[in-house]
Amino acid sequence: MAEIATTPVPPYYTVIFTSLRTSDDDGYGEMAVRMVELAQQQEGFLGIESAREEVGITVSYWRDAESIRRWKAQVEHREAQRLGRSQWYADYRVRVARVERDYGPESGGVA
Amino acid sequence: MAEIATTPVPPYYTVIFTSLRTSDDDGYGEMAVRMVELAQQQEGFLGIESAREEVGITVSYWRDAESIRRWKAQVEHREAQRLGRSQWYADYRVRVARVERDYGPESGGVA
Repeated sequence: MAEIATTPVPPYYTVIFTSLRTSDDDGYGEMAVRMVELAQQQEGFLGIESAREEVGITVSYWRDAESIRRWKAQVEHREAQRLGRSQWYADYRVRVARVERDYGPESGGVA
Repeated sequence: MAEIATTPVPPYYTVIFTSLRTSDDDGYGEMAVRMVELAQQQEGFLGIESAREEVGITVSYWRDAESIRRWKAQVEHREAQRLGRSQWYADYRVRVARVERDYGPESGGVA
């Protein structure tokens, strides 16, 4: 996750997951690594970016809204969500959004 | 920026800015602080979240696409964009997206 995700020409979808952690680290690191591995195996997965300071932000990219629904309902991911709510996260917000346009330095920021 | 942004009921818009820094810190910290201050003063601004590890991610939230266009064109912000491209960022990607739904722990993740 140390790179900027390479994504196709929009439109595509994104899940912005913003969280505040508890002090309970039990199993958290392993889960976080496993969830990235698992996400990468899902149909429609396009990429992921993640960073944490006080707030943690994980942005994943998906082909369409249906891919996101399937990922949310995936059995092992559901268990991680349950543990997240009960143990690891003091607070969080999930936002599902449709990417309409994107650009980088190659376009001079003109898009 | 140490909190999860409080945003209204969707739809609203978001700008996901993902970046890799250069080793040039000259003026960067001051610019970053100033740009958050300035963004908060813009019409249509709703909130901002930011974290950096290897990748830096700043997610800002806006009432509509027009607010984002105005912010992108704001004079002082344009100068920061120019310096960012030439000095501070080794690479970056800007993604503009429409938030269609969101949820937190209060809904049990059922949205």
